[in-house]
Amino acid sequence: MASTPSGPAATDQLRRLNTALVLRRLRSSGPASRAELAQATGLAKATVGTIVAELVRHRVAREPAASEPPADAGAERRIGRPGRPVELDGAHLVALGLEVNVDYVAATAVDLAGRTVLTARETLASSQSPLLRVSRLARRCLARLLDDGRDVIGVGVAVPGLVDHDDGHVVTAPNLGWTDLPLRAALLDALPAEGLPAGYPLRVDNDANAAAIAEATWGAGRGRSPVLYLTGTVGLGAGLVVDGVAQRGASGFAGEVGHIALGDPDRRCACGRTGCWETTVGLSAMLRTVGMPADDGRTGDPVQAAAAVAERARREPAVATALGEVARSLAAGVATLVGILDPEVVVLGGYFVPLGPWLLPGVRHTVSHDVLAGSSRRCTVDLSTLGLHAASAGAAADVLADVFDGTLPVTP
Amino acid sequence: MASTPSGPAATDQLRRLNTALVLRRLRSSGPASRAELAQATGLAKATVGTIVAELVRHRVAREPAASEPPADAGAERRIGRPGRPVELDGAHLVALGLEVNVDYVAATAVDLAGRTVLTARETLASSQSPLLRVSRLARRCLARLLDDGRDVIGVGVAVPGLVDHDDGHVVTAPNLGWTDLPLRAALLDALPAEGLPAGYPLRVDNDANAAAIAEATWGAGRGRSPVLYLTGTVGLGAGLVVDGVAQRGASGFAGEVGHIALGDPDRRCACGRTGCWETTVGLSAMLRTVGMPADDGRTGDPVQAAAAVAERARREPAVATALGEVARSLAAGVATLVGILDPEVVVLGGYFVPLGPWLLPGVRHTVSHDVLAGSSRRCTVDLSTLGLHAASAGAAADVLADVFDGTLPVTP
Repeated sequence: MASTPSGPAATDQLRRLNTALVLRRLRSSGPASRAELAQATGLAKATVGTIVAELVRHRVAREPAASEPPADAGAERRIGRPGRPVELDGAHLVALGLEVNVDYVAATAVDLAGRTVLTARETLASSQSPLLRVSRLARRCLARLLDDGRDVIGVGVAVPGLVDHDDGHVVTAPNLGWTDLPLRAALLDALPAEGLPAGYPLRVDNDANAAAIAEATWGAGRGRSPVLYLTGTVGLGAGLVVDGVAQRGASGFAGEVGHIALGDPDRRCACGRTGCWETTVGLSAMLRTVGMPADDGRTGDPVQAAAAVAERARREPAVATALGEVARSLAAGVATLVGILDPEVVVLGGYFVPLGPWLLPGVRHTVSHDVLAGSSRRCTVDLSTLGLHAASAGAAADVLADVFDGTLPVTP
Repeated sequence: MASTPSGPAATDQLRRLNTALVLRRLRSSGPASRAELAQATGLAKATVGTIVAELVRHRVAREPAASEPPADAGAERRIGRPGRPVELDGAHLVALGLEVNVDYVAATAVDLAGRTVLTARETLASSQSPLLRVSRLARRCLARLLDDGRDVIGVGVAVPGLVDHDDGHVVTAPNLGWTDLPLRAALLDALPAEGLPAGYPLRVDNDANAAAIAEATWGAGRGRSPVLYLTGTVGLGAGLVVDGVAQRGASGFAGEVGHIALGDPDRRCACGRTGCWETTVGLSAMLRTVGMPADDGRTGDPVQAAAAVAERARREPAVATALGEVARSLAAGVATLVGILDPEVVVLGGYFVPLGPWLLPGVRHTVSHDVLAGSSRRCTVDLSTLGLHAASAGAAADVLADVFDGTLPVTP
């Protein structure tokens, strides 16, 4: 039965999907011979040969230089032979990820093989416009990448707020004071045409979604699913990645956990309601609980602020005890999220990382003892390992994902 | 570039996937000509022709009889011509769905085109074994289906508890008193070999997951995503379906919302903890709140019990007022779930359905006014339309899904 697609559109699409299949395999399993790629993907050897030749020609994949020993020592060494290993390269293809936050802007550029090729971070004074600062940072990063001979294939930007991922406008980012801001359009205007391909993807995402993608791709969630990322900053944010795909919900608002009713019912939240989870576990709440409230309502860099708290908790038992209170509210909320979502791993990021020694044991105990069937669950709680660049790296990863699912071609 | 898969395994798999592509199209869009199918699927017309011939030969699809007017009156009427419409048939192929609950067992058989061909339901006395009763019900249903000339392609069973969907054992079903019960193995033993194909799929699922699949396929969630189904019975259960796929979590325990801390912090739950959401919104809690506690701790059929409450609420203002209390706790929990999951629709099932007039307005108001960015959300709250057979129909749908994703072949 002849059941292969045909016609120009189908052929073109099939070639792109097959190329993506080879790229995914190279990414997930490292260097492989053409024969191994054919076996792993189910494609014909001749097909794999043609795809690999194209990828090598466009420097998306490479064959290690002759001086390097081939992976299979018994294989023929002649270049281009089926036994010779191929590996993902794409060092010249990068996605630029940006993060706008209350007290800082950040950028991370990641190449196709997942290597970080540039990071930058700037603290914001309260008088500065986050939008202007992130645009300027993006322009500087693009200029540097261009100087380095990189091709920027797309830009992602992560913000702490509710985002329409489809059209790239920010519905509301309370801590930035943004409402209905067309961020995608604003950045497309602010970025230079030079060094960016026509019609390049510019993605706007929630910061916790972006960080969750980064954790699932390179961090504490690698190889696990679902990955629930929970970050403590001025607000709280959560992102869920199932089988590599960010779960954004119907309106792109999934994971908006800061304002669910898990906090102090008597305390008013910045959003106007009472009892939000942020009122007991947000950064300001934590600082107040340990007796270090920020004078002007601004909390500064969340991780630096938390590091100062950690420093004091090591010396002052009262501070450590107060952190126990934060841990209890954090644990109760994590238990609720685990009951609803059943993640394989909960990754705690943001200010939770420096305070891990005081927060993690309580959260872990609650998840394994107080959640229904806790002992039967495959659920662990870990700290983020990606540090301050998780959200911007994830915004870049979201653009790179287009290459690996075949929607963004990297060979003409 | 020759990039078509080849080799026997790839060809076989490709044929099955292409067949599934045609079946999905026939299911989603109704009758279509071969030319329309080719255009919609991207497959070659010749390929579609071969696939359709196979499907018609095995009665999985059919061409309306000559007396029926063709969909396109201008098309040629000769049988088998490209212009002639084809529609999904498969009336002889059915999946049997079962539900075990505390007070009843139920069965629904659904054919490949989604038509319900058999329903059965039996109330359980407290002395009866739900496992024996569901086995007996399944055997009777199988015998009837066999008499009717149906081929049962697989069996699904839904239970109110935490289930390992991979190996089909029930980890815990507190309201049934089951712990670590190998339900799949027990049912495979109890069902006759006659009338079931060798190695047929027998799936065990959580009842709310199953009902969520049914609602997303045929009910209030049809055409929407994510679908969050929330059912009120003796316990509470939730199921989430994203783009047609049930989200079961890492251990299959996702949606276990009855025991998250949204209830009365001073009230002890059947699970041993305090403050579970079931303590304010479970069936017993609702009955207690309206002053109709069940004498022996058993609540009977949840929907019948709720219908009796509705009857009284119509006459007694005090009962209606008491239901307002249940509505508030239900709304607070739904708001939490909406904040975390951002569903496009929340479908309320079980005992919530007869009490819809008293519960729905409060829940809808909370979702649109008290959830962050409520007015920007594409989220509605509706009542289940599938009634008492949602879970068993969903268990059947889960088996039928194997046909439409190409894992269960229906043409040899």
